[in-house]
Amino acid sequence: MKTVPERLAALRAAMVQAGCDAYIMPSSDPHSSEYAPGHYTAWEYFSGFSCENANLVVTADDAAMWVDGRFFGAADTALAGTGIASMHMGVKGVPTLTEWLGEKLSAGKVLGYTAETMPVMQCRKLNDLCQKQGAKLADLPLVDQVWVEDRPALPSTPAWLLDLSYAGKSPADKLALLRGKLAAQNCTAMLVTKLDSLAWLLNLRASDVESTPYALAFCYVDMDTAVLFTNTNRISAETLQQLADAGVKTGEYMGMAAYLTAGTAQQTVLVDPASLNAALDNALRSNSLYTVVEGADPIAMLKAVKNETELACTRSAHLVDGAAMVRFQMELEQRLSKGETLRETDIDTILHKYRSSAQKFITESFSTIAAWGPNAAMMHYAPKVGADAEIQPKGYLLVDSGATYYDGTTDITRTYAVGPLTEEEKLAYTRVLRCHIDVAMAVWREGATGGELDMLARQPLWRHMLDYRCGTGHGVSHVGAVHEGPQSLRPHSNVAFVPGMVITDEPGIYEEGHIGIRIENELVCVEAGESEYGKYLRFEPITFVPIDVSCVLLDELTREEKQWLNHYHAQVLEKLSPLLNETEVEWLRTKCAAI
Amino acid sequence: MKTVPERLAALRAAMVQAGCDAYIMPSSDPHSSEYAPGHYTAWEYFSGFSCENANLVVTADDAAMWVDGRFFGAADTALAGTGIASMHMGVKGVPTLTEWLGEKLSAGKVLGYTAETMPVMQCRKLNDLCQKQGAKLADLPLVDQVWVEDRPALPSTPAWLLDLSYAGKSPADKLALLRGKLAAQNCTAMLVTKLDSLAWLLNLRASDVESTPYALAFCYVDMDTAVLFTNTNRISAETLQQLADAGVKTGEYMGMAAYLTAGTAQQTVLVDPASLNAALDNALRSNSLYTVVEGADPIAMLKAVKNETELACTRSAHLVDGAAMVRFQMELEQRLSKGETLRETDIDTILHKYRSSAQKFITESFSTIAAWGPNAAMMHYAPKVGADAEIQPKGYLLVDSGATYYDGTTDITRTYAVGPLTEEEKLAYTRVLRCHIDVAMAVWREGATGGELDMLARQPLWRHMLDYRCGTGHGVSHVGAVHEGPQSLRPHSNVAFVPGMVITDEPGIYEEGHIGIRIENELVCVEAGESEYGKYLRFEPITFVPIDVSCVLLDELTREEKQWLNHYHAQVLEKLSPLLNETEVEWLRTKCAAI
Repeated sequence: MKTVPERLAALRAAMVQAGCDAYIMPSSDPHSSEYAPGHYTAWEYFSGFSCENANLVVTADDAAMWVDGRFFGAADTALAGTGIASMHMGVKGVPTLTEWLGEKLSAGKVLGYTAETMPVMQCRKLNDLCQKQGAKLADLPLVDQVWVEDRPALPSTPAWLLDLSYAGKSPADKLALLRGKLAAQNCTAMLVTKLDSLAWLLNLRASDVESTPYALAFCYVDMDTAVLFTNTNRISAETLQQLADAGVKTGEYMGMAAYLTAGTAQQTVLVDPASLNAALDNALRSNSLYTVVEGADPIAMLKAVKNETELACTRSAHLVDGAAMVRFQMELEQRLSKGETLRETDIDTILHKYRSSAQKFITESFSTIAAWGPNAAMMHYAPKVGADAEIQPKGYLLVDSGATYYDGTTDITRTYAVGPLTEEEKLAYTRVLRCHIDVAMAVWREGATGGELDMLARQPLWRHMLDYRCGTGHGVSHVGAVHEGPQSLRPHSNVAFVPGMVITDEPGIYEEGHIGIRIENELVCVEAGESEYGKYLRFEPITFVPIDVSCVLLDELTREEKQWLNHYHAQVLEKLSPLLNETEVEWLRTKCAAI
Repeated sequence: MKTVPERLAALRAAMVQAGCDAYIMPSSDPHSSEYAPGHYTAWEYFSGFSCENANLVVTADDAAMWVDGRFFGAADTALAGTGIASMHMGVKGVPTLTEWLGEKLSAGKVLGYTAETMPVMQCRKLNDLCQKQGAKLADLPLVDQVWVEDRPALPSTPAWLLDLSYAGKSPADKLALLRGKLAAQNCTAMLVTKLDSLAWLLNLRASDVESTPYALAFCYVDMDTAVLFTNTNRISAETLQQLADAGVKTGEYMGMAAYLTAGTAQQTVLVDPASLNAALDNALRSNSLYTVVEGADPIAMLKAVKNETELACTRSAHLVDGAAMVRFQMELEQRLSKGETLRETDIDTILHKYRSSAQKFITESFSTIAAWGPNAAMMHYAPKVGADAEIQPKGYLLVDSGATYYDGTTDITRTYAVGPLTEEEKLAYTRVLRCHIDVAMAVWREGATGGELDMLARQPLWRHMLDYRCGTGHGVSHVGAVHEGPQSLRPHSNVAFVPGMVITDEPGIYEEGHIGIRIENELVCVEAGESEYGKYLRFEPITFVPIDVSCVLLDELTREEKQWLNHYHAQVLEKLSPLLNETEVEWLRTKCAAI
């Protein structure tokens, strides 16, 4: 079954057989991961469109997919002609998933789903909806039935432990920390379901998820025991021994639910509903010895506030990454100036050449976004060989990329002028740069939240009734997923920043069919000092790569913004020079010249 | 009893008789008003210090008063030698009221209070504390017993209804609106306890509270009835008729509790615990026919979003007030330049002369703060005849003042250079001005909160680890109290601004013993427009009075800030000129010259 219509037809046939009127596929794996391993990407298989934070619903004669602002343009293009409507989430006049399902699910109808990949919170909402409509919500394994032949196997890449010299804390120390947090909440156990949390807790890494060095696994922790549930035959004897030394036993991934059902000790089990699937929720509730406590995963905060080793390592990784970015930009400029034709997909090839030559390189931290001209208006555009644009000598090339090294994970966006710019293009770039700098140079009294700081980022755009339909920034895991919480820079985020948290600062302008600009550094929250008014915090960049000032309307910047930019470029030159050869340093010196 | 020690001795004698070990007097009247009528100011009588948001506690051999940041300096001075410790709220190392009481209240001890003036929320906290300590909380009328001779009577000023041409909506219309809100919350009645809410609901005004045109009153509203409880013999027959026409009956103020106790109909009564006193809470709970629902006062939002009439009136009142401010400043400059000696209390005299000559003048909206030099560091400094400073020809004079007219209430602060300034003084002024402008020129997508916008105000100070220990701004009632909620500009305020809300924008710098600067306009939230990203809002000043630019380091302002300032001054000149004579216009023209 090669085409989307063929796949949908097969699914619909299975639906008829199962007495199912609508089937829902959220963009989730059993851990509510942001990026799911191929085995679980049913919403992509049946729609032909790759994205995150989506829901695909299929009925006998209709189908629709809800996507968020990052994917509006790309979804419209990809879904055209498939019979699947592209639904823009949060846009006035577009029915929400609930409204749409409400129309379809009259009394007696059946809404099917796969419990294993259904986030428990969504499952409860769907259940409420079905009850209200007199419909029935049913766990039906139709995906498993229909998607067999060309389905990727469950991942099983080698799993290993991140060395203490990169992690800063051993699994035994981290388990002790976690048990302390559990005891403080009157819990005796926790089911760790989020892959990020598990990777942090056990220092476990693998390559089960594309671009993310994580192992597909669960971990059950009580006061005496810790059991890692994963595909165990990909773990070396040495790693197994390290885990055993830290008091960690192992079990098979598919045995997680059975382990919970079979538990024989009374436990008060903490689970975070944000990463729990409906199948494990059922297993937990089926065991009367368990008191289930739902709450925020305490590992999130432990993980988000980086320790000194993690910070030192990640700073070092960013310099290596910065040197690769410099070499990439030099090659890009040289080849373009020679009149060579480059396409968007060539960008990733060049970047990969430089990044992967670093000794500690593991993987790109996400699919490189290289978007020329109007393509850059699609926030999460991924160019594909054969369907990518040529980089023409005008306007902007947006490059959002990053890598995970043994000592850190990077995420950086630069927007390059690849030809003459209009005044309007320069103004847009300058405004985005102001947004970036206004966050980067913020100082705040301890306690200020991501929502409050986000206001600084948006003023230069909001004053002109412009905006970007996404947060200003997200956390970044240490040698892990490129997105982490709980901190974020977005309206109404009520998480206060704490020294040691890492955040991206990536405002942008995206005008569909026209232009896309983003400038992104990673920042770390540090102490600014103390005065009679209290303790003050600020951000410090950890990304050091020149920002193209040839696109800037200098008069539009404030004196303080210019100072920040000059200071930043002085640091870029100072920090990257030791990693570069003489020619490269000379090139960098011109890029870092004060304005 | 003239002295504080004498008063405390009398209170302590009554405490011994009543078996009371500690007596607490919060700064509250029966409505949790910010400014209480003299009759209820026990905390001031027994401490000798006037302030808001305070608690005075007296034990047999100790006494302490908790004051907030606005009053630190003034409280230290006033309480010195009284035997009452000045406790700085929120300062590290200073015990909180609860901690302090925890030390004093061992098992069996009795903490006394007056239920009528005890906010119910505070009462519950004190009760929890007493239970924890094994102590007892007792309603003991010791204030009424001890404070008899020189106690102000219950206020009884003429009460009248604000004309429809100023209020925009009749009491009957407003009652209908309120009943709609109650029904939406499944309530059948409401006990309106906040004086602001009552004044809005019935358009009732009086002068019971100093500088606030309100009547001390409660209002009971159910679906059929509305009863105003106040001192009724100060209401004219005409006003009584107007109330009757709107379906409002009357009862006596002191009969409120008895009315509730005697209620014979089943009701679901909404009360806002934020303005309910413990005595009325007891009365409500004692009647088994009532189901008491605690929730936010729905009138607050109805009142905060001004109607078109209110906005037009208040804009007009601000111009009249602006003309008075211009005349005041002209006289100030002339008299100082002639070498005349002026004292801080002279400022109010001059201001009153100009403001009170306006046809629609009712009262000053609060005690004028006129503070020269270091005195201005005390945020709520009130100069007193005989104890006020001479305005010397150096540094700054801070003047925070306002009035209530029949068509609106004003609140404005200007800081004037009254002699040569140091660079440091100019820098401080410039930074405060930047804070002011950065809020005033903000544009935001609908939904942004006061906490998020507050971030803009503080950046120019936070970047230098400076701050002010108060909010950036507060709402202002229409022909009413100078402070209103629910909107505010302060960290973490989660109330989103709505077109029609009025807010002050009054950042400052206060360095104890050294300098005080504040620049304050009132702003109104208006629609900025709509784009593909949504609806945008902004502020528009309604205060039009020149801002002293001779104190500004122009290079420190951004281009946008300069533009704002020039645009503002052009508006000041245009809007005030029709109200001024030729000489005044000429003077204003120089003050409003573009920079």
